[in-house]
Amino acid sequence: MNRAFIAALESIYPADRLLTREVELLPYESDALTAFSAVPGAVVLPVNEAEIIDTVRLCHEQAVPFVARGSGTSLSGGSLPIPDGLTIGLNRLNRIKKLDPEQRIAVVEPGVINLAITEAAQPYGLYYAPDPSSQSICTIGGNIAFNSGGAHCLKYGMTSNHVLGMKVVLADGALTQFGGESIEGVGIGPDLIGLFVGSEGLFGIALEITVRLMPQPELYRTVLAAYDDLGRAGDAVSMVVASGLLPGAMEIMDRLAIKAAEASVQAGYPDAEALLIVELEGEAPQVEAEFDQLRGIIDESGAFEVRVANDEEERTRIWKGRKGAFSAVGRLSPDYIVQDGVVPRSRLGEALVEISALKEKYQLEVANVFHAGDGNLHPLILYDGREDGALEKAEALAGEILALCIRLGGSITGEHGIGMEKRDYLPAMFSEEEIDIMQALRLAIDPKEIANRGKMFPGGEAPALAQHGMHPLERAGVISRE
Amino acid sequence: MNRAFIAALESIYPADRLLTREVELLPYESDALTAFSAVPGAVVLPVNEAEIIDTVRLCHEQAVPFVARGSGTSLSGGSLPIPDGLTIGLNRLNRIKKLDPEQRIAVVEPGVINLAITEAAQPYGLYYAPDPSSQSICTIGGNIAFNSGGAHCLKYGMTSNHVLGMKVVLADGALTQFGGESIEGVGIGPDLIGLFVGSEGLFGIALEITVRLMPQPELYRTVLAAYDDLGRAGDAVSMVVASGLLPGAMEIMDRLAIKAAEASVQAGYPDAEALLIVELEGEAPQVEAEFDQLRGIIDESGAFEVRVANDEEERTRIWKGRKGAFSAVGRLSPDYIVQDGVVPRSRLGEALVEISALKEKYQLEVANVFHAGDGNLHPLILYDGREDGALEKAEALAGEILALCIRLGGSITGEHGIGMEKRDYLPAMFSEEEIDIMQALRLAIDPKEIANRGKMFPGGEAPALAQHGMHPLERAGVISRE
Repeated sequence: MNRAFIAALESIYPADRLLTREVELLPYESDALTAFSAVPGAVVLPVNEAEIIDTVRLCHEQAVPFVARGSGTSLSGGSLPIPDGLTIGLNRLNRIKKLDPEQRIAVVEPGVINLAITEAAQPYGLYYAPDPSSQSICTIGGNIAFNSGGAHCLKYGMTSNHVLGMKVVLADGALTQFGGESIEGVGIGPDLIGLFVGSEGLFGIALEITVRLMPQPELYRTVLAAYDDLGRAGDAVSMVVASGLLPGAMEIMDRLAIKAAEASVQAGYPDAEALLIVELEGEAPQVEAEFDQLRGIIDESGAFEVRVANDEEERTRIWKGRKGAFSAVGRLSPDYIVQDGVVPRSRLGEALVEISALKEKYQLEVANVFHAGDGNLHPLILYDGREDGALEKAEALAGEILALCIRLGGSITGEHGIGMEKRDYLPAMFSEEEIDIMQALRLAIDPKEIANRGKMFPGGEAPALAQHGMHPLERAGVISRE
Repeated sequence: MNRAFIAALESIYPADRLLTREVELLPYESDALTAFSAVPGAVVLPVNEAEIIDTVRLCHEQAVPFVARGSGTSLSGGSLPIPDGLTIGLNRLNRIKKLDPEQRIAVVEPGVINLAITEAAQPYGLYYAPDPSSQSICTIGGNIAFNSGGAHCLKYGMTSNHVLGMKVVLADGALTQFGGESIEGVGIGPDLIGLFVGSEGLFGIALEITVRLMPQPELYRTVLAAYDDLGRAGDAVSMVVASGLLPGAMEIMDRLAIKAAEASVQAGYPDAEALLIVELEGEAPQVEAEFDQLRGIIDESGAFEVRVANDEEERTRIWKGRKGAFSAVGRLSPDYIVQDGVVPRSRLGEALVEISALKEKYQLEVANVFHAGDGNLHPLILYDGREDGALEKAEALAGEILALCIRLGGSITGEHGIGMEKRDYLPAMFSEEEIDIMQALRLAIDPKEIANRGKMFPGGEAPALAQHGMHPLERAGVISRE
């Protein structure tokens, strides 16, 4: 890294918060997308806004690319270091600066852990709604970059629906404010919060975030339904959607996922081809009324067993297996790929049938765990990395699943983002002109393309470390690179 | 207007759809913001997408500013002609191209009337939710430009929450697509639909819009509560909000608005200082459960009379006065200004007290009709334009109300937009850097600033016809111009 740049950083940071030795840099080498890694040029650990602003302005001045990093839980490589670029670690900015139960807002720093907001709000009967599976470790800054969702985002929306305001340092060093402390101030002109949330760190760094808090639901009603056919569970979801009911969560697990969960946490699930979990939440009278309706739908949906949680303990038991399913799959197979794709809810059944056919074609095991309510599939493709060609086969299958999502009118990512993992898939979803517009907006904010350079957009610099030459979608014939 | 430009238009349009003679141009001289008017250089009336695209590309090539116009109902002058610019009239693009009751979507052209979508969807038990008061005349294209709301947008959101996809010709002539046919495809990267919706025509023209249809509520429960104190009605709204209930609509009218409505449509309202209308909507069991809760809150709120609509006829009667209130005020006064501002819902009471004090200070009558549920105030300031200085006094009062909205943490517009009317107020809401960002995004899409030039942003060309030298906020000391 340029010596003058390091010297300038030294004028901002004391030695213990400016890391440049290889041994110090190694912990920042990768994120939750383990297929890639890269050594950053340096890592800085700011403790306040002023240091971040100074750092971004310095990067802009000297055209040094940077990536902001929270807990590094990105599954798409969004927080992967830029080779020879600067990683700005935000974990030390972890203060909840304000919590106003009357206005139902919290003002937090970007390094605050998602769950910490809910914990702070709990004494007031409030909580922060978006709940990614990593909520006990991931930071709100990362949630904003990737517009994170979670099992309970069906009813109240993703991160973008819960951010009221932001103080931001843009990639060119400009300091600005979007929105405010109430939803009422948000409505003027283009939706700049919407533009920033989900922009994967390409526009700048959020310094302070005002989030909406919601009243804790007075009552939950959780139903577990067991089916001897996966398609039937998918159809049940369509029936619930068509009824107009809006549950807080609606999740499906297939046989292999159930098996993994059982082996791991002994959730006591029925022996079934598919399990559907539907959870209603809200005010007691409303939930009771909705529950009667839901019960009728489930009874007609061909479930061979239905369990209803009558207290918090039973509810926890139903969720235990679902929440542990991802890590549990690790017990069944030495390696697996987590895919993230979306299909229209009306085409869930179709998607499941095609994924079954793909399993046959590739002779691989696939565990399906998904947010059925919003059509967000998370197939886990099992393989043994020690076998020659096994990873390539698994990736080819993953690529075909994404191609299927596009063909059915869905999307190549529901909540993990494009990041490094899927940047070359962007042209399969968007036309050249559409990508040009995104690029034009980016250049308007970041003329030197320094913020999270190399992520989201295809082309540009080569990935930090591409373990495999060909992208799965390329193998599946959906995209091609000359 | 440049002769070569007109000649180029002649190669796109037959003579009866290219208007250049003054007598033909006059009907396009103004919109619902009657304080301004301007003669456009020419008006074209395309009948298909191809003509619009050719026109925008021609304007871009020759750097001729244009404004797209639907029914011209903008209350902020958003569809006001640009002096010597081109007005593109979109009323003839009024086809509903597709209505899919299963997917619950409609694909429409920009000149389709808002209410026409609901009428087409009705046979399938569906409707299009956003309902601006002008819904029987305003077009969906205009709704998109201004992210229009309405009395029933409290529960399900404004236009931006109901647009799934758009085909767009951008100001530089690029053709693109945002989103798709389902909410599932929308989630990738920055929210370009959010960026476009509410951008007041500054990014381009929507050629085709895919909107979400909702199931018609099975049941409505409408409550009319009468108070002998305006603040108490405001407090009732805060109580409903705090309870967690989410009504479909929550409206307040004050004494003067009630008097106007009575004089005009004989709604049979009680004689009161304030009326609160709360409407619940949804599935029958849920609405019944919510109604019990609402009834309890209203009973405790100090209302001296409560009426409940038990059938559609009684519901219509309650709404009749509210819906007619705006035009009814015209019976009380020769002239009035409709203001549009927002305050946080928690500060409604405070705002009402201050507006009362301002009435005293200016010795003017103000009728308050507002979307209380989302803090959107619509004070109607009565004056007699024939009296010397009366308009100036009314505008000064309007300016103080906007200054009040900003001071309380709200916004200078809830649903009418910035347009021509409030462009010089923008610096009172946003910092210079924030306005620079908006401008940078605009230039990324429209480098020649031809799309709706002169609207939204302060400065630039002088307003088409400023009837009054000084802006109300300037008089109120909130903004100043050298």
